[in-house]
Amino acid sequence: YYAGPKKRGNAFTTVQGYLRDEQVLLPLIYPVTGRIPAPPFDYEGVMRAFYDASAERIADHLAAGRDVVTLCEGDPFFYGSFMYLHDRLAERFRAEVVPGVCSVVASASALATPLVYRDQSLLVLAGTLPEDELSRRLANVEAAAIMKLGSNFEKVRRVLSRLGLVERALYVERATMPGECIRPLVEIDPGSVPYFSMVLLPGEPWQGA
Amino acid sequence: YYAGPKKRGNAFTTVQGYLRDEQVLLPLIYPVTGRIPAPPFDYEGVMRAFYDASAERIADHLAAGRDVVTLCEGDPFFYGSFMYLHDRLAERFRAEVVPGVCSVVASASALATPLVYRDQSLLVLAGTLPEDELSRRLANVEAAAIMKLGSNFEKVRRVLSRLGLVERALYVERATMPGECIRPLVEIDPGSVPYFSMVLLPGEPWQGA
Repeated sequence: YYAGPKKRGNAFTTVQGYLRDEQVLLPLIYPVTGRIPAPPFDYEGVMRAFYDASAERIADHLAAGRDVVTLCEGDPFFYGSFMYLHDRLAERFRAEVVPGVCSVVASASALATPLVYRDQSLLVLAGTLPEDELSRRLANVEAAAIMKLGSNFEKVRRVLSRLGLVERALYVERATMPGECIRPLVEIDPGSVPYFSMVLLPGEPWQGA
Repeated sequence: YYAGPKKRGNAFTTVQGYLRDEQVLLPLIYPVTGRIPAPPFDYEGVMRAFYDASAERIADHLAAGRDVVTLCEGDPFFYGSFMYLHDRLAERFRAEVVPGVCSVVASASALATPLVYRDQSLLVLAGTLPEDELSRRLANVEAAAIMKLGSNFEKVRRVLSRLGLVERALYVERATMPGECIRPLVEIDPGSVPYFSMVLLPGEPWQGA
């Protein structure tokens, strides 16, 4: 399971009660969490080395004939760090990917709002994008989900305000998890926004229905 | 449960083995399935009347103090017909929406391909859109999922070919269900494409990882 340097992570704590004593725990501790240090720090190189080493630790167990389960919150192929292990190991070992409830639909259910009607398009995008890129991509969307908020929240809210979308936008923290919290976008202190948060722009209800 | 005129539907057949004798079955039979008849047929009016009547049938049970479960494939708020009942009933009765594994992530797992890396955007769109609209929305996407294929398949494949995306595109039928089938896009007979099929354009793997 992936985890931060001093935490066990949501995926681990979710399944903790179901683990058995004979199972081996293999924590994969992210070398960088939160804000990425500026160059000359080689973020991509550090992460590549981390994923390489993690994949080899797993490969050792697989080669010894053990089954390995990688825990993921949400869906493993939907922005999940599992994909970097899959990219490295799936050609050498048999892999089964169990799809999950991704955060976008979990947030829609928490907010009790349909995401997309009929032939509306849904754009899912990361709050980590530069401000002008967020503005460009969010102009003229029918429905959108903005992920990876955390320290990007203030920038995202500014873009939504400028595009006249802030009234339609809904915000949820920790959807479907303990501590789930729904708050109006305007009331939020940007310093308090957790990584497990989302802004949804639901599609306009179909007038015909 | 929603169903076609002569079918019980995937949602119903999925849970059939778990039903109990004392449960009341309430089939909601779509008045139109497949291709929508041309005007003067009033599709929107017919569907509105159908959803109105369906909601009232459910409301009668709720008002009598019974709990009602609406079955959905995938996620109820992700293009699910449940949303039309929710729009009509959620203000009058307490509703709980259980999020599900939506077809986009189910298809990605069946195809064993990560959907989106890092800050890539994912566009989900309906194959029912007009050809020029599909072309416009799919130009310059990083990753996309095209749903509602069926009789729209040939148009979608034509658009992907014109945009030079057909080589990157992956096709799956009935992902995670009995009869799941993965086929190259070029080999498909458009007449054979079922509604439960999807084209994915996965994001390009992150070079750093």
